[in-house]
Amino acid sequence: MLTKWIIERKRDGVELKPEEIEAIIQGYTIGEVPDYQMAAFAMAVYFRGMTPAETAALTKAMMHSGEVLSFDDEPRPSADKHSTGGIGDKISLILAPLAAAAGLAVPMISGRGLGVTGGTLDKLESIPGFNVQLRVADFKRIVREVGCCMIGQTATLAPADRKLYALRDVTGTVPSIPLITASIMSKKLAEGAATLVFDVKCGRGAFMRTLEDARGLAASLIRTGAALDRRMAALITDMDRPLGASIGNALEVREAIEVLRGSGPQVVRDLTIELVAHMAVLSDVQPTLVHARGTLARLLDKGQALDRFARMITAQGGDARCLDDLSLLPTAPVQQAVPAPADGYVADIDPDALGRVVLELGGGRRLATDTIDHSTGINELAAVGTRVAAGEPLCRIHARNAEEAAGATAKVLAAIRLAEQPPGETPVIIETISEAT
Amino acid sequence: MLTKWIIERKRDGVELKPEEIEAIIQGYTIGEVPDYQMAAFAMAVYFRGMTPAETAALTKAMMHSGEVLSFDDEPRPSADKHSTGGIGDKISLILAPLAAAAGLAVPMISGRGLGVTGGTLDKLESIPGFNVQLRVADFKRIVREVGCCMIGQTATLAPADRKLYALRDVTGTVPSIPLITASIMSKKLAEGAATLVFDVKCGRGAFMRTLEDARGLAASLIRTGAALDRRMAALITDMDRPLGASIGNALEVREAIEVLRGSGPQVVRDLTIELVAHMAVLSDVQPTLVHARGTLARLLDKGQALDRFARMITAQGGDARCLDDLSLLPTAPVQQAVPAPADGYVADIDPDALGRVVLELGGGRRLATDTIDHSTGINELAAVGTRVAAGEPLCRIHARNAEEAAGATAKVLAAIRLAEQPPGETPVIIETISEAT
Repeated sequence: MLTKWIIERKRDGVELKPEEIEAIIQGYTIGEVPDYQMAAFAMAVYFRGMTPAETAALTKAMMHSGEVLSFDDEPRPSADKHSTGGIGDKISLILAPLAAAAGLAVPMISGRGLGVTGGTLDKLESIPGFNVQLRVADFKRIVREVGCCMIGQTATLAPADRKLYALRDVTGTVPSIPLITASIMSKKLAEGAATLVFDVKCGRGAFMRTLEDARGLAASLIRTGAALDRRMAALITDMDRPLGASIGNALEVREAIEVLRGSGPQVVRDLTIELVAHMAVLSDVQPTLVHARGTLARLLDKGQALDRFARMITAQGGDARCLDDLSLLPTAPVQQAVPAPADGYVADIDPDALGRVVLELGGGRRLATDTIDHSTGINELAAVGTRVAAGEPLCRIHARNAEEAAGATAKVLAAIRLAEQPPGETPVIIETISEAT
Repeated sequence: MLTKWIIERKRDGVELKPEEIEAIIQGYTIGEVPDYQMAAFAMAVYFRGMTPAETAALTKAMMHSGEVLSFDDEPRPSADKHSTGGIGDKISLILAPLAAAAGLAVPMISGRGLGVTGGTLDKLESIPGFNVQLRVADFKRIVREVGCCMIGQTATLAPADRKLYALRDVTGTVPSIPLITASIMSKKLAEGAATLVFDVKCGRGAFMRTLEDARGLAASLIRTGAALDRRMAALITDMDRPLGASIGNALEVREAIEVLRGSGPQVVRDLTIELVAHMAVLSDVQPTLVHARGTLARLLDKGQALDRFARMITAQGGDARCLDDLSLLPTAPVQQAVPAPADGYVADIDPDALGRVVLELGGGRRLATDTIDHSTGINELAAVGTRVAAGEPLCRIHARNAEEAAGATAKVLAAIRLAEQPPGETPVIIETISEAT
């Protein structure tokens, strides 16, 4: 009867006590609270929202539903980043080794792609031999030895979140700020990083379509982290166009390697540096953001972040030779350019549409059980603002066969708008919420 | 994925199409839509409500989730009544035989008691041998031969409602007008009666506590019945005090027998006559309400309704001799009066409190699986407005033992307020929505 009363109180807009939230989450984790009660509870939360205290209690209960790691015995301060996900977002692949090179310990637990959104684990698995399923002991050891390690969610960390996330997906209860907050934060807190920086994506290719929604989520994350004693920052960043020039697993690894070599798309480099700068300043390994940006640019340019990436790949069973020989990465059998139909400026690129193209090329999953083709996707994408002449490539398509390549070409052309006048500039970082200066 | 989209559309306040509602109900009935999706859907309906068209589609889908009976081949017009439930509501026991005596066919499917609210089936089972679990063929035969038959919900009628009702009970989704409407109406429509009269209880002892809520439910029932081609009426009646002078299963059967003999509490007789009058006029077996009231009073006074009750009891395996010899009904070992603590007028009786007393005396169920003691309860309850002298009985308690009787006495005294001045009169029938005149 207790669970029913908790649902009714939430339904009626009463602020729940922490022990009520704990009871329902603990009960759900061990199977005493059935899915149908949790589904009704989640829908009531969707409509009623949660106070900051409720959201913090929910996050804490979900965090403590399983093992909670600690890196307090680690000499380097621990820090991590989480992105709410977007099209072409390969930042984690660069960020983790760069932060490690800057003196941070980065215990990063990532997810897989679903729908149009890619997943860091899938990208990493493009690297031959790379193992994302490590035991917790090995995870901690590699973080200690290399400074960073990137693995998949384990069965022991925040099991309530795994259960609840799957339930929300099929019960129409995904788009709820407190539930999203608790889902993201509980995993990140269980992971043990002392500092957390969030990349809240905003735009057509993101879960948060409007700036208002993105601000709401960023504020909720910051508030909840602060309530649970973490140093926190959040950047609201543009996802009204794809991030960088590549979309697709191995193609994004290539782009990440380029950035780690000191080149690659400026927007990817800039956003990575900015995110790590906040991690470094909040963790007191850099005095100011300005100083941090300079240090991090040098670490990229001198190959020190790339070296850290190589060590992490080796430690996780992967073939680090791919960093020097990109041909060791999966390559699609068909590669063809998409020529511009006319002269003009690239005025707009619909990220969601390109995400769907990559999904259809086999580079993503419709269902969580689908397998992925790591080689396919889009790269050499002309950035918004680029001037192109008719016939010049707008991007290259990497496909399993000519038929799929042709289908993708038509859809890519429909997703890219050319104009006679150059579009106004839009910054990648829209807003920053951070105590770092 | 379809179900998820239906949930999301309801969540977002979009009016669902009849085929979407059918799909979710059909899927739920056969187990393809799991409980957790239905729970989320029900909570979304709680918050968003339903349009009249949606409510009608939901009712229709639930009605057609199983067998649908028809009494169209019956020479007498079929009609039934449904009450939303209250304390001391034994109307059905009188109404069904009275309506049968008036020339109607009454195929009545009733429920069991839960919490403070009694159930017609439990009351009927006070009668030795009475069988409420008949096959549909026997049910139809007895309706044809006797004019009325009262049974429990069968597995084949509106199975979606049985499943959904149990789910709503544990997911905080009971108090939703469209869900209540569909639950009540789907069963009653599947039962096959052409005319339906609703007794919507209103007050402290009812599910609908305010007149506004009761009006909302009554309007929704009428609207939905009209959309599905039934002749309908609804009476909003007082449940701010218990109905009649008896609460408890066998005690209510005794009171019903008194009314069938032409005596008993006036309020019970009046309300029964009024409900049957609407059934009779809407079914065209009586020309006007005024005429019907006179006819029905005569049928009670001449024992014709009692005779019909005797025939129904016999047809359903019960011992009809109890109508002449009340000692054949279960009798509690301890019976004691509750004396008035002072002189005064009975100014108020809290129906919910007396319902709880009867529950604690063993006359009700806390859980659906509890067993019931048919003998216990309260009777000879002084009506509101009665003048009593100190020491005179306010009621009699029927208990399993002296200890429980003593506990009940204290609680009964707390539930009855005496005053020096007589209270204002409050009619039992608050509002009537009917085309009958």
